[in-house]
Amino acid sequence: MREIFITDVSLRDGIQSLLATRVRGEDLYEVLEVLDRCGFWSLEVWGGATFDVCLRYLKEDPWERLRKFKDIAKNTKLEMLLRGQNLVGYRHYPDDVVEAFVKKAYDNGIEVFRIFDALNDTRNMRKAIEVAKKIGATVKGVLSYTISPVHTVEYYLKVARELVDMGIDIISIKDQAGLLSPKVAYELVKALKEEFPSYPVHLHTQTTADLAEMAQLKGIEAGADMIDTVFYSLSGQTSHPPGETMIYVLREFGYKVSVDENLYKKAGDMFREIRKKYKKYDVLPPYPDVGVLKHQIPGGMITNFISQLKEQGMEDKLEEVMQEVIRVREDLGYPPLVTPTSQIVGSQAFLNVLHGERYKVVTKETRDYVKGLYGRPPAPIKEELIKKILGNEEPVYHIRPADLLEPELEKVRQEAIQAGARSEEDVLSYVLFPLVAKEFFEWRDKFEKGQAPPPYTEDIMQEEEERHKAPV
Amino acid sequence: MREIFITDVSLRDGIQSLLATRVRGEDLYEVLEVLDRCGFWSLEVWGGATFDVCLRYLKEDPWERLRKFKDIAKNTKLEMLLRGQNLVGYRHYPDDVVEAFVKKAYDNGIEVFRIFDALNDTRNMRKAIEVAKKIGATVKGVLSYTISPVHTVEYYLKVARELVDMGIDIISIKDQAGLLSPKVAYELVKALKEEFPSYPVHLHTQTTADLAEMAQLKGIEAGADMIDTVFYSLSGQTSHPPGETMIYVLREFGYKVSVDENLYKKAGDMFREIRKKYKKYDVLPPYPDVGVLKHQIPGGMITNFISQLKEQGMEDKLEEVMQEVIRVREDLGYPPLVTPTSQIVGSQAFLNVLHGERYKVVTKETRDYVKGLYGRPPAPIKEELIKKILGNEEPVYHIRPADLLEPELEKVRQEAIQAGARSEEDVLSYVLFPLVAKEFFEWRDKFEKGQAPPPYTEDIMQEEEERHKAPV
Ligand SMILES: [Co+2]
Ligand SMILES: [Co+2]
Repeated sequence: MREIFITDVSLRDGIQSLLATRVRGEDLYEVLEVLDRCGFWSLEVWGGATFDVCLRYLKEDPWERLRKFKDIAKNTKLEMLLRGQNLVGYRHYPDDVVEAFVKKAYDNGIEVFRIFDALNDTRNMRKAIEVAKKIGATVKGVLSYTISPVHTVEYYLKVARELVDMGIDIISIKDQAGLLSPKVAYELVKALKEEFPSYPVHLHTQTTADLAEMAQLKGIEAGADMIDTVFYSLSGQTSHPPGETMIYVLREFGYKVSVDENLYKKAGDMFREIRKKYKKYDVLPPYPDVGVLKHQIPGGMITNFISQLKEQGMEDKLEEVMQEVIRVREDLGYPPLVTPTSQIVGSQAFLNVLHGERYKVVTKETRDYVKGLYGRPPAPIKEELIKKILGNEEPVYHIRPADLLEPELEKVRQEAIQAGARSEEDVLSYVLFPLVAKEFFEWRDKFEKGQAPPPYTEDIMQEEEERHKAPV
Repeated sequence: MREIFITDVSLRDGIQSLLATRVRGEDLYEVLEVLDRCGFWSLEVWGGATFDVCLRYLKEDPWERLRKFKDIAKNTKLEMLLRGQNLVGYRHYPDDVVEAFVKKAYDNGIEVFRIFDALNDTRNMRKAIEVAKKIGATVKGVLSYTISPVHTVEYYLKVARELVDMGIDIISIKDQAGLLSPKVAYELVKALKEEFPSYPVHLHTQTTADLAEMAQLKGIEAGADMIDTVFYSLSGQTSHPPGETMIYVLREFGYKVSVDENLYKKAGDMFREIRKKYKKYDVLPPYPDVGVLKHQIPGGMITNFISQLKEQGMEDKLEEVMQEVIRVREDLGYPPLVTPTSQIVGSQAFLNVLHGERYKVVTKETRDYVKGLYGRPPAPIKEELIKKILGNEEPVYHIRPADLLEPELEKVRQEAIQAGARSEEDVLSYVLFPLVAKEFFEWRDKFEKGQAPPPYTEDIMQEEEERHKAPV
């Protein structure tokens, strides 16, 4: 009887997908206590937007949240999503910052690092993998899934080989846009299990286009060992398959899944209440985004275009911009449309349509991308486009982007302390988000002296009041 | 290349599942025109609650709607769901009414009859099947799916054999409660295709517990030929899988599916707007009901219990009532919990808990059920329970329930005409729903003289106004 291991991602990806990461730590401690006894292989609780939102909006120290989580979760490994050399930020950080961050994350409670790079340039993942392995953490090496002529099974086998050679423990397929079909899931997992028979394969799929449950099922038929789910009340829309249903299905097919049913139900109902409390951020329609199957442009990007075009009085250009997104993505070597490449491709496509000429105006980000500062594009960019954008400069695809960066930590530490950092963790927060962290430190000082209110007090009070008035 | 045929059920089951059937015909004509050119095998547009809601709330003649639909749909067969001897009502009608109704439905535009009985007692389906076949319609003979010790693959093969012997064209699996798992879908379809290789197998699944997409995929792997889907904007929750996604998945696996992509997109967006207009009825949470996997009690029943128990100040008895539902269902031979058996089992369980003694008080419906007036229970009822409920009376399981009914049509015709019926179709409306039809006829008379407003005028005006004010 094959065992399938479940990672619950409610506390990170579930809440990020449906509630804009806006849920405060104190609303999660109680449910985490239940989750910890459910029998999951791990709990994904940190990374992605957690850091930014905690500091910026919730006025919550993300390190402090992690320590509290770790205190509560005595039985289950805590896992985080790490954007390779980007860590939990939006640019490449130098190696000294990567090393310090991974170590501190581990010290504060993270045992499993899920490490990815949007371009699948493993040079952007190498440092984080090395550090995590050295300190004894478990590493999931991620294949970022997208659809394009170059993103074939062979392509992913090659990326997986590089990651395996770097010492990862688990091969993880990450379908951030919800594009992984059951057929491709089957073929990809099968090929990975044949090529790397001793490596567990982990499958992370988003329900955006309603493919995820089928993709997980076919992926498991092909040999996948681990999947990510959320509780029913945080499932569907742009989130993930409900664990309750997947476990029911898998057990019926004869797979072993170790979770406690009663605790499971309890936690699902607790998340339902959390979702009610934060309904202000719960704005997605209840049905899937099937457009993404056709043009692979995430719904969020299209919504942005609509409002940008409106501002310019160019509402009729939506179809044109969308077609241009597809062309720019092709020009740039088919990067997956996720942060930060979705912004790069989107802005450039918008400018190309706005100015009525392609690449007449080029953003700094497009330039950096073409130069290779984000890494090597998945497919080569045409010579003439490189010329048009870089002029006489040469791209630096042969150089690992972080090799171009000076160490930062020592240089910034004094500045961070002056801004209010009290610990090495604070210094890291400052390095990652200087302005936001500084504001947070200042708020924290005032708050401790009773000179600043807790964040959102009024909003949350009002929401709680409405909730008590509402019929069940 | 195997072809998979799609029936779109947006206009009947989609709108019934998500918008309480409250959408007026005039809001559907435009989208039907598009649907008709999409290339579906058929469109399910009538039956279920259509009749009742049209007459009662929408003040719309259901026959008139059907004729308009037929006028518009020049390329695609129209299909209806028929509750066997119950037709579109809530009790058994005598054979003369069944015959007249099926004929008139055919005359007015229905070419495919999907005929079921909640107890899978084929004697309740025989008359409708015979009439439909005789007039040249296509018949889907339905297996009503539920989970119980008696509802095995062998059980369904036996029911299918009876239906095949009655002359049906297509074997149809109807999973009204969303309980059909991918494993059972596979096994059931496989067994049916082996036993009846020349019969197409059709699969109707509800997304209630998030099983439906997986069940359809595995059912098709096992040989199913036809599935039911809705457009993306009416998919999920207690409705159905999105056709857009299923077609994408099936084509990728190499199945042939004949639909026009561009029209498909257009219709999906039109349903999105319809859904906005009727948002008042759009009240379900965006996540699946996974409780049903555990106790098979539909969410709607539980909601009813909660309010009934509240009225009695017995809120703490919910778990007890739910356990009693499971026991009463077992006592009564495991009927599927759908109309009308969900009401029978639910009310009896509630009374059993309320009075602190099982079957101390017995409803008329429970009595009729035990006597056999609804047909033969799926599993035998224990002798002592029959005694307790019927006393000295004997059950009549050996008699086809409709054989106990006198012809009705001639007897009621005069009464119907006096109530305002103007046509044979009106007479049938009256036989099915006498009070509701009479009220409708009276309203119609007044409306035509300008003495009564159209229904809901104010409500709908207000909704339309809000819609125009709202930001996109
Ligand atoms: Co994700
Ligand atoms: Co249905």
